[in-house]
Amino acid sequence: MAEGKKSVVLSGVVAGQTAVCTVGREGKGLHYRGYDIRELAEKATFAEVAYLLLYGSLPTRQQLDDFRGRIIRPRDLPELLKKMLESLPGSSHPMDVMRTGCSMLGCLEPETNPQAQQRTIAERLLACFPSMLMYWYQFHKSGKRIDTRNDDQTISGHFLHMLYGQNPTELQRKALDVSFILYAEHEFNASTFTAREIASTASDFYSCITGAIGALRGALHGGANEGAMELIDRFKTPDEAEKGILQSLARKEKLLGFGHPVYTIVDPRSDLIKAQAKKLSEATGDTFLFAVAERIEQVMMREKKLFPNLDFFAAVAYRLMKIPTPMFTPMFVMSRTAGWSAHIIEQRSDNKIIRPSAEYTGPEPRPFVPIEQRTPATTGAV
Amino acid sequence: MAEGKKSVVLSGVVAGQTAVCTVGREGKGLHYRGYDIRELAEKATFAEVAYLLLYGSLPTRQQLDDFRGRIIRPRDLPELLKKMLESLPGSSHPMDVMRTGCSMLGCLEPETNPQAQQRTIAERLLACFPSMLMYWYQFHKSGKRIDTRNDDQTISGHFLHMLYGQNPTELQRKALDVSFILYAEHEFNASTFTAREIASTASDFYSCITGAIGALRGALHGGANEGAMELIDRFKTPDEAEKGILQSLARKEKLLGFGHPVYTIVDPRSDLIKAQAKKLSEATGDTFLFAVAERIEQVMMREKKLFPNLDFFAAVAYRLMKIPTPMFTPMFVMSRTAGWSAHIIEQRSDNKIIRPSAEYTGPEPRPFVPIEQRTPATTGAV
Repeated sequence: MAEGKKSVVLSGVVAGQTAVCTVGREGKGLHYRGYDIRELAEKATFAEVAYLLLYGSLPTRQQLDDFRGRIIRPRDLPELLKKMLESLPGSSHPMDVMRTGCSMLGCLEPETNPQAQQRTIAERLLACFPSMLMYWYQFHKSGKRIDTRNDDQTISGHFLHMLYGQNPTELQRKALDVSFILYAEHEFNASTFTAREIASTASDFYSCITGAIGALRGALHGGANEGAMELIDRFKTPDEAEKGILQSLARKEKLLGFGHPVYTIVDPRSDLIKAQAKKLSEATGDTFLFAVAERIEQVMMREKKLFPNLDFFAAVAYRLMKIPTPMFTPMFVMSRTAGWSAHIIEQRSDNKIIRPSAEYTGPEPRPFVPIEQRTPATTGAV
Repeated sequence: MAEGKKSVVLSGVVAGQTAVCTVGREGKGLHYRGYDIRELAEKATFAEVAYLLLYGSLPTRQQLDDFRGRIIRPRDLPELLKKMLESLPGSSHPMDVMRTGCSMLGCLEPETNPQAQQRTIAERLLACFPSMLMYWYQFHKSGKRIDTRNDDQTISGHFLHMLYGQNPTELQRKALDVSFILYAEHEFNASTFTAREIASTASDFYSCITGAIGALRGALHGGANEGAMELIDRFKTPDEAEKGILQSLARKEKLLGFGHPVYTIVDPRSDLIKAQAKKLSEATGDTFLFAVAERIEQVMMREKKLFPNLDFFAAVAYRLMKIPTPMFTPMFVMSRTAGWSAHIIEQRSDNKIIRPSAEYTGPEPRPFVPIEQRTPATTGAV
């Protein structure tokens, strides 16, 4: 998201109230319900953060235990959903798979009573998105119909267990959990605003999340972490990276993973995920990737005063966890479902339909021309 | 949509440029690319209007013939999609079915080259949305696996043929075609803005349409025509309707199908669909429904100065065509796909990501509290 404010529509225009999050205060702040992202990443777990987002306060031990149960138990998938995942091509984009899986779940387990069901559906989706992705992935990779029920106490552990076919290390589980904390919420970003826009028509919970997945998929939004990985992957050594980046900058090429429309000084999440990437790098002994990334970071700061955003070192951490690159954005989905859900619930609590206006640039009123009198017009010139 | 401007977020705020449509000029205007909706409804066909929206100009005879071919040929569904439709519950909301079908088609026939594919995908969706809905419906109603390939020259005829199991009358075909013209496009309404918001992240075409279907589903948007039907269905005679509406108004009940946030004087589409409903009413001899609706219209104007919007008499026309009420909003999808597609293509042609701001109403920065020190907080009080 190397977008400046000028290339953002509705930038600075208030499209609603929120108590969920503030971003970009003093050019560098991020708080979930008043708690600094730095403290949350250091001291909390993703389960606590998801609870905070959904319920408005940090959970007591008992509340957390109950909540963990609710996001662990519903990890299984309906048989019909499994069949559908089996029938999708193995070559599909994983985001298309998640979008379709979410929409289908909305047919199988529909929301009929929003007040009673909305948080239950949010918890169900938090629990089963990793299952959906991994069931589809493992079936098409090896023909295995994996059992998605697993009692790992964390969503990150559950996912990695299904990816690896065995328990992850504590470091891997922790690093992914931290990335989930950082990706969980970001105010009125494009996918969250999509979810709120859909919620504003009084549609169902699944429609909101399905639409949000579709928005997150885009290369200018969630898809940017794949672009960041592609950038890092171009280089084999830090020196090669320095040279290559300078050349790219000279060509005015747009580099993904740097800058952010709502932060002017720094993306506060970058150093937090960078610390995890560093630990993974040291633990695996595979340090070249981290060194290349760090050099790119230095060159971008020195040459363009651009800081890395969350996507940049998240890509490094995910690669070091052996998460396939096309699954980087689905990781974002598993986490951001917490934030999206909080916003849907909030939008519903004091709903007004969201309906902006347009500046008209087309032809002024003109008389209808019968088909016999039409001349070959230039088509496709819209 | 009995919403006034005050209950609309971003009302009057320009969220982009469009050459597709103007709504509400002088409180009553609607023009697609400069052509008055009244002329289009009277003199054009839905195929011409869809072409106009997608390509920017009315088609010549040759262009229309070619276009008709492109929205007739791809009426068949992939086998895997049919299997999925068979596996969905017969009790699903038809909008959930269409949302899921659209998303799955995005897995089976993905968009890999937007410039080359986007209008082809729009045409494919125009061709196969009626097939999707009717294949699912007939399979679950009677176990029949219908052949969705059919050479009816209109989308309305194709749909009604599959619904009735035989050719519709010319009047039925024409009435549905007119409703499709009227529903095809409406500037930055919530579902179209959802489609543009998703397009603004550089996501794929199917994600945009899938999200738009989810937004249209809401009771405050496309779902309103079902609400209008429910209102009319309450009464058996015009006199009963008069009495009932007066009672509802006395109770300050919100009545769907009246008023509109972008029209202050009249919804120009209402009289156009009302004329079709009247013809259907006379042809079927089933005139009580139209008479009840007309009386409701008179009472609402006399008592509240509120005019009916498109949804109101569209509901009457659809009922007289024996379209099941839960399919009213899917009719809207089949038509609005033309407008959504035009907006996606337009958004992409000069894209900036759409990212508004929020007014923060939550807690100010507060220190993290370790779990042992937390007291039981009021949950669910978000």
